[in-house]
Amino acid sequence: MKELITELLAGNRRALARLLTIVENKREGVDEALALLFSHTGHAWIIGVTGAPGTGKSTLVNALARAYRAQDKTVGIIAVDPTSPFSGGAILGDRIRMQELAGDSGVFIRSMATRGHLGGLARTTRDAVRVMDAAGFDIVLVETVGAGQSEVDIVRTAETTLVVEAPGLGDDVQAIKAGILEIADVLVVNKADRPGATNTVRSLKTMLELGHRAARNQFHHGQLLQPAPSGDTIDLWMPPIIQTVASENRGTAELVAAIEGHRRYLTDNDLLEQTERRHIEIELYDRLRDELMLRLLDVVPEAMLTDMIDKIQAREMDPQRVVELLLAQLPSP
Amino acid sequence: MKELITELLAGNRRALARLLTIVENKREGVDEALALLFSHTGHAWIIGVTGAPGTGKSTLVNALARAYRAQDKTVGIIAVDPTSPFSGGAILGDRIRMQELAGDSGVFIRSMATRGHLGGLARTTRDAVRVMDAAGFDIVLVETVGAGQSEVDIVRTAETTLVVEAPGLGDDVQAIKAGILEIADVLVVNKADRPGATNTVRSLKTMLELGHRAARNQFHHGQLLQPAPSGDTIDLWMPPIIQTVASENRGTAELVAAIEGHRRYLTDNDLLEQTERRHIEIELYDRLRDELMLRLLDVVPEAMLTDMIDKIQAREMDPQRVVELLLAQLPSP
Repeated sequence: MKELITELLAGNRRALARLLTIVENKREGVDEALALLFSHTGHAWIIGVTGAPGTGKSTLVNALARAYRAQDKTVGIIAVDPTSPFSGGAILGDRIRMQELAGDSGVFIRSMATRGHLGGLARTTRDAVRVMDAAGFDIVLVETVGAGQSEVDIVRTAETTLVVEAPGLGDDVQAIKAGILEIADVLVVNKADRPGATNTVRSLKTMLELGHRAARNQFHHGQLLQPAPSGDTIDLWMPPIIQTVASENRGTAELVAAIEGHRRYLTDNDLLEQTERRHIEIELYDRLRDELMLRLLDVVPEAMLTDMIDKIQAREMDPQRVVELLLAQLPSP
Repeated sequence: MKELITELLAGNRRALARLLTIVENKREGVDEALALLFSHTGHAWIIGVTGAPGTGKSTLVNALARAYRAQDKTVGIIAVDPTSPFSGGAILGDRIRMQELAGDSGVFIRSMATRGHLGGLARTTRDAVRVMDAAGFDIVLVETVGAGQSEVDIVRTAETTLVVEAPGLGDDVQAIKAGILEIADVLVVNKADRPGATNTVRSLKTMLELGHRAARNQFHHGQLLQPAPSGDTIDLWMPPIIQTVASENRGTAELVAAIEGHRRYLTDNDLLEQTERRHIEIELYDRLRDELMLRLLDVVPEAMLTDMIDKIQAREMDPQRVVELLLAQLPSP
């Protein structure tokens, strides 16, 4: 394993691919690998890209990758598909991309589909990002479909999060959700040459301004709201709205500049450490939850668990009561 | 609290509203309330409705509610918005619906936005469904936006899950995801009077058939795959595709029939108990995870936790090592 890590750090692509597979499939040695490479992480700028199906995220990510390559930065791409139980979709997308960015040794693409249980994908993504980070990529792009909790979890890995919209994806009250404000550092209206783009931009702007005002008043914790480490309050980050036509490479330069602007905002205001700390806390809590559960299942007899589930199903006991009884199996502090 | 539950069981609407608020805000007495009403649950048919923004889910849910009312069934609606940090959106949607279904005492609508931490919404939704179930509603409709993990978690409460699509919501490879197969019992193509409806239906059909074949070959556990309790294998449920124009109430009768078909499939094949059991297991595990974490935080000194996070941030320790050290604080079995 040490050898493999040494090869990874030296820029060996086969070592990178092997480590990503180990991480993705939670193969033997995964913990050792992550422990060994951890001290080499923290250098990449991690950009999360999320948005509904049909917004053209993949094309946008490819355009971004090319733009960063033109700046001579190396780019790792992790395309996560939390909705696919099959790897087919991911592999298809992968091939299309491979063709576009093929032959460039400064880009590495990895697609991941759903594996295992709840929350598992966020953890796997985080670990995969770490492998790419240790491998020395300047930029790691994490792309994921949708706008649900899994995407929120996945982009929690990122320093800068792009939320991608496109005109005409829906016209009801729910089409543009206030929720995007919570995770977006930069808003992208892709396919901006389509009819309705101006409306989409206007609606997003209104939502942003409303959210910004609400945030100023409420001042709770969240990605948007950053009391400065100095104790002062600083200007909240106002997510810019960038229009792009990724398929024709229009707007990419502006988008790269907006991402750079967000990066400067974080670094100039000493917010980077704080952001990282929040990410670490979330990760630690996730891991602890999983481990604690495994420990409990070690001490609770299988028959007891089955019996309790029977009792809940028969409505003889409520779930909370069962939780208390099961926890009583643990040694008391 | 006992009095409140008695009123709920007697059909008192104010008691219902109060209990939903207690559950949603996790107010004092929530555990007691849920324990008291639990033995009165298990009678409602719970229908999950999910789909991307713009598919017209709310209109569809309203149409379904009217159809069930015409059959003289009482209907509870829980509209969950996992993406909204504000309750504004939910309240707006609520008002539009209230006007449509107002004055009918056989319908009760509750909107819920994001509260608190990760996974909290799935738990709150499950508890709210339980309150409505105990209140005696024949049908409980749980509506949620999107197609991510939070939606999957939320519809795990349901006996029948509808996944709503609409024509023209996107045209790239990702537009129609294989992931829907995992949770859909019935597929709805709403806004079926729009151009492209035939294509949407055809694409969904292809995906379904592919998934069905893959499922037959793989035979892992999942909502689609039901080895019979008898030990025989039975025909897998093949989700029907129903076209609707909810705004004009077209296709609603067919949709109600499809839902009824799924219900019969579950009951005729003795799969209902099995489905419920899986839901109970998921719930129990979720609750245990949360409680275990609270217990750990009780025994780990605050200063130790902070110090460990510092060490991770300084790359002096990797997260897995810290997890091991923190767990060592617990009394060993």
